[in-house]
Amino acid sequence: MSIHGGDVYRNHVELDFSINVNPLGVPDAVKAALRDAVERCSSYPDTEAQRLKRAVSGMLSVSEEKLLFGNGASELFMVVVHAIRPKKTVIPVPSFYGYEHAASAAGSEIIYYKTRRENAFDGMDDIFEILTEDVDLLFLANPNNPTGTLLHKENMIKLLSYCRDRGIYVVLDECFMTFCGIQFSMLSELKSEGLDNCILISAFTKIFTIPGVRLGYLVCGNRLLLDSIRKQLPEWNLSCFAQEAGCVCAKQTDFIAKTQIYICSERQFLTEGLRQKGYVVFPSMANFVLIYRKELADERKINGDSLYEYLLERGILIRDCSNFRGLGRGFYRIAVKTRRENESLLRCCPRGGIVGDFSDEKNRVLSSGGN
Amino acid sequence: MSIHGGDVYRNHVELDFSINVNPLGVPDAVKAALRDAVERCSSYPDTEAQRLKRAVSGMLSVSEEKLLFGNGASELFMVVVHAIRPKKTVIPVPSFYGYEHAASAAGSEIIYYKTRRENAFDGMDDIFEILTEDVDLLFLANPNNPTGTLLHKENMIKLLSYCRDRGIYVVLDECFMTFCGIQFSMLSELKSEGLDNCILISAFTKIFTIPGVRLGYLVCGNRLLLDSIRKQLPEWNLSCFAQEAGCVCAKQTDFIAKTQIYICSERQFLTEGLRQKGYVVFPSMANFVLIYRKELADERKINGDSLYEYLLERGILIRDCSNFRGLGRGFYRIAVKTRRENESLLRCCPRGGIVGDFSDEKNRVLSSGGN
Repeated sequence: MSIHGGDVYRNHVELDFSINVNPLGVPDAVKAALRDAVERCSSYPDTEAQRLKRAVSGMLSVSEEKLLFGNGASELFMVVVHAIRPKKTVIPVPSFYGYEHAASAAGSEIIYYKTRRENAFDGMDDIFEILTEDVDLLFLANPNNPTGTLLHKENMIKLLSYCRDRGIYVVLDECFMTFCGIQFSMLSELKSEGLDNCILISAFTKIFTIPGVRLGYLVCGNRLLLDSIRKQLPEWNLSCFAQEAGCVCAKQTDFIAKTQIYICSERQFLTEGLRQKGYVVFPSMANFVLIYRKELADERKINGDSLYEYLLERGILIRDCSNFRGLGRGFYRIAVKTRRENESLLRCCPRGGIVGDFSDEKNRVLSSGGN
Repeated sequence: MSIHGGDVYRNHVELDFSINVNPLGVPDAVKAALRDAVERCSSYPDTEAQRLKRAVSGMLSVSEEKLLFGNGASELFMVVVHAIRPKKTVIPVPSFYGYEHAASAAGSEIIYYKTRRENAFDGMDDIFEILTEDVDLLFLANPNNPTGTLLHKENMIKLLSYCRDRGIYVVLDECFMTFCGIQFSMLSELKSEGLDNCILISAFTKIFTIPGVRLGYLVCGNRLLLDSIRKQLPEWNLSCFAQEAGCVCAKQTDFIAKTQIYICSERQFLTEGLRQKGYVVFPSMANFVLIYRKELADERKINGDSLYEYLLERGILIRDCSNFRGLGRGFYRIAVKTRRENESLLRCCPRGGIVGDFSDEKNRVLSSGGN
């Protein structure tokens, strides 16, 4: 089983619900910029990324000297750990595998903090207990992947300040934040709250549906830290495609607003449809939902394949989450796509009776949560 | 002054002789592949780079499991040092700045080995003295940048075996090798000579004129080492543009043969022209030449600007090499371009009388060397 979604290279896939990109696709202007970039690929890309920096600085209202760009967010996770060289890293789970990949690359010990499914993976009240002074780095995704849970601002400020006071750096991954809305981002609080221990990372990959282009960015108010992170970046880490596309992406405010409304509505539609099928759907603020369907070994024999295999036979790829730390058999992540695609998925989904851990009652409780 | 050539972003440049790419430009088939890739950028790139691996494996006659790909060679230098974590690294100078950048990122002590201009930067007879057992890593470029010197196979085998016997890893940068000819590459010797300490790195950047795309590759017969290098790579380090272009590049054997003949002839033309202008031109086997023009502070006042500034005023960018370790004022690197472009450069070049270090006699000696 692959560690990530999107493996359309070794599967026959007609509908890919396993990757969390924008169902509205690539904006036309971004495609045009990529086409133009073909003509520019004979020049070395600008190592200073001057035009891109100006554009993104304007988009985020962040000064240029606080910005760094990466060949996707995944490169930025790597360079941050090499700059910090943490001895001990805390990673809440379930979450994105990339944090573990990065922390391991730097040879760090990793402490996993397990969020509870009983709380729909929401809340991190007891994380403070393991954030002791010997911890060097905390990875935090907001909203979290694959759960879609969003930590609210006041809790986030409390957590980040707590870390700052104990000398713990925090990588705050906001790669899915643009789907929720800038009002939930910690971008402005980095400055107002003096959170110099915080490295905010985001990407254009998901919101602009350009995972093939590779473009992430990093915001950090701590100049010394930023300099040491920059030293870990290869010298020409951004392709001309990333730079040209990024300049155009930074101006797509209408597209972003339209996306947020669309995702909110389609997530509701998909959530209700999946619940009607009898699955547990965890409340999500992102462009995907985590679902649970009881799949015991015994039951498989009766009901046939797992949901993953069942749908793949019908040309639909979803993300089997059984290999996520903190999850297990029966958990799947499903992207919010267009109405037509969501309908196709729902039509193909078999009914799944909820038993065991997640009683009908629990399902109702979860259903009543915001989504 | 910038650390690298190619800064067309902060200069007005009509002819760029500062970057060492193929004067024949991007092959049409590669451009077409890049255009097609625009339509594929909504999918995550293949993390296994399966198609690319197969294509490059065929091109190099190297088995797939010995190959890794990077977002340009510069990413590969970084991940290699993070995998090896050298305490002591030897870097011959003058050479590419990227080795120093990478070794510093891993916090390594760096020992510089100075090749002598009196020998036209050729030969490394006394490098063995500093390759003691406490050295962990040696960077070596063949042919070397910016000098264009080529270390011949028997010397290379001697050097690499010497390192192997002392537990010294060698990063062998063959990024410009395709301009010389595969017969000079150490690719087949890695296996036949059991050089498991050697990591061969090359790129498609120069030969296919696609520095904006970012695609490098690494060959290593040491499986354990290769695994530890792979762990340092970000998870999706290759864009869809790099993968699509790379598959097509791997088939351009005719284009490569044509390039080698063209470069050989134009390098001769450029070398003779520059020597007639009164510059020292060091014998080069690559697609660029290192030149020397006496520029004393006093002389500048009389003759005006440095050659760099003089040509930049005329819209021509060359690489000022005064900030290369082991070089100094008066050294420049000039790419071999098309006949028309080379003629334009020669027309614009002022006459430069050779005095001081490089007497007329020395110039004649150098002129008699192969180029």
